[in-house]
Amino acid sequence: MKKQPSFPWWYPRKVQYYETDKMSIVHHSNYVRWLEEARLEYSALHGVSYERMEAEGIMMPVLEVRCRYRAPMRFGQTAQVYTRLAAFNGVRVKYEYEIHCLETGELVLQGYSCHCFVDADSRRPLNLKTRHPEFYQLTAQLLELEVGMEKEHNE
Amino acid sequence: MKKQPSFPWWYPRKVQYYETDKMSIVHHSNYVRWLEEARLEYSALHGVSYERMEAEGIMMPVLEVRCRYRAPMRFGQTAQVYTRLAAFNGVRVKYEYEIHCLETGELVLQGYSCHCFVDADSRRPLNLKTRHPEFYQLTAQLLELEVGMEKEHNE
Amino acid sequence: MKKQPSFPWWYPRKVQYYETDKMSIVHHSNYVRWLEEARLEYSALHGVSYERMEAEGIMMPVLEVRCRYRAPMRFGQTAQVYTRLAAFNGVRVKYEYEIHCLETGELVLQGYSCHCFVDADSRRPLNLKTRHPEFYQLTAQLLELEVGMEKEHNE
Amino acid sequence: MKKQPSFPWWYPRKVQYYETDKMSIVHHSNYVRWLEEARLEYSALHGVSYERMEAEGIMMPVLEVRCRYRAPMRFGQTAQVYTRLAAFNGVRVKYEYEIHCLETGELVLQGYSCHCFVDADSRRPLNLKTRHPEFYQLTAQLLELEVGMEKEHNE
Repeated sequence: MKKQPSFPWWYPRKVQYYETDKMSIVHHSNYVRWLEEARLEYSALHGVSYERMEAEGIMMPVLEVRCRYRAPMRFGQTAQVYTRLAAFNGVRVKYEYEIHCLETGELVLQGYSCHCFVDADSRRPLNLKTRHPEFYQLTAQLLELEVGMEKEHNE
Repeated sequence: MKKQPSFPWWYPRKVQYYETDKMSIVHHSNYVRWLEEARLEYSALHGVSYERMEAEGIMMPVLEVRCRYRAPMRFGQTAQVYTRLAAFNGVRVKYEYEIHCLETGELVLQGYSCHCFVDADSRRPLNLKTRHPEFYQLTAQLLELEVGMEKEHNE
Repeated sequence: MKKQPSFPWWYPRKVQYYETDKMSIVHHSNYVRWLEEARLEYSALHGVSYERMEAEGIMMPVLEVRCRYRAPMRFGQTAQVYTRLAAFNGVRVKYEYEIHCLETGELVLQGYSCHCFVDADSRRPLNLKTRHPEFYQLTAQLLELEVGMEKEHNE
Repeated sequence: MKKQPSFPWWYPRKVQYYETDKMSIVHHSNYVRWLEEARLEYSALHGVSYERMEAEGIMMPVLEVRCRYRAPMRFGQTAQVYTRLAAFNGVRVKYEYEIHCLETGELVLQGYSCHCFVDADSRRPLNLKTRHPEFYQLTAQLLELEVGMEKEHNE
């Protein structure tokens, strides 16, 4: 139950009062927003901030989100939003998430999100490898790192 | 308690589950969003849709919002968001609101919002009278109408 | 592209200004809320309103949500949130959704959500068949109806 | 323009992507939520956490909120949500706020919120002085402190 995920980085996120619903738990739609917060923080830490991306005319619309809710969270608790890059080929990118409750250690959510890259003006898909080699390199290296860590963790 | 406001038009708005909080009532921040919904619907009905405004390169940022909360609302209830234009001079505009609960007739909220007009590109203030005479006329006429109705109501 | 889903019922939902983000499209987290709105409306129409459920001490937490985003929506557009019951066994229930844009006919989103039933006080899972035979019957009949319609549609 | 408010404590709050709207600025309704975040943090720091209040069966519904919007904020910026207790008599309480942009120093918002205390079960107003002398004392002392600081600041 209190097993930690294989990926080490997490984003701390306090439950806000306005995120609870009349069941007295966090409304399930809010976790999708936390995943975005964590994803953007994680990317910025690895050199690819979304502000810089947008400044370069690149946007990353969401293609898919899946959340499996394992336990509820309540006001007063803090989430650990574990986040890692799980796949990337220059055209698409996938992030995986696990949310744990800092206070109880419980697994709260498992999920992933998939994104593509588009030109801010035309909104047409683009390949990061040709459009922005620096971001491509940073992301590819990050993927290698994450894959390596997972292998180690599984050995 | 069940007195209706002096202005006749209202926008119906069902309470959504995700708008409740752990007090089992609508979180106070959501009413600010309902006021916007009602304001945009009201404006569109009177010939000045926000889509058209934006298409003309005009935006209406919010300068002020004030809400006095009189009674809570709950999931399963429907709000009557009474809305009217209260002041307008081409540069600034003020809307007044009252929210009543359709089921109980209770007064839920009294409030107002103030806005100005800005150019979408420069974000600088503009005068609707010179920038868009048609919108100016429509809004000025609407104000006359509302003022007239209020006088009648008070007589 | 403009193919309608096999299930006929849809919930109309206007895009609200506050649901757009700086990409000028509806933020992906909001669709999860629309699915809830549609699901609750759909259930109420078929005799199982969530208000009545809660009055009987039954809650339906979300176990899983999956959304595949096919096209963006913009302010000024209206969503058709197609919704149907897809599976039900008294313990768990699954709903399927498709969102189409009323103005363009485009497919916007495909998704599903899974839920269980819990006692409002103990928050422990329950079987609707024993806890509330009436809701069980109504839901089981609805499933039959939806399955029948799908068969017809596929023939 | 870059004058700091007379009250020293502030709550840091990063702008989230999902809080922006198609004007590319933070939607005005979100600031109301930030005020709540700041208020709860501020109260907790001074010994009156809302979790403890609720554990004692006391709730603090919002009676009024007023926000004057002075400048917009954008994704990538961080707000300084200056917060202080401004009035308190055991029955009602008022907080004042100023939001400044950390990056630009600009004044973003000035506002206040008023609250009362109610019993969580009956939802009837209560006087903190009789219902919970400890919370009353802590809040009364905090008010003295804030009033004192303001005097000093104005001298």
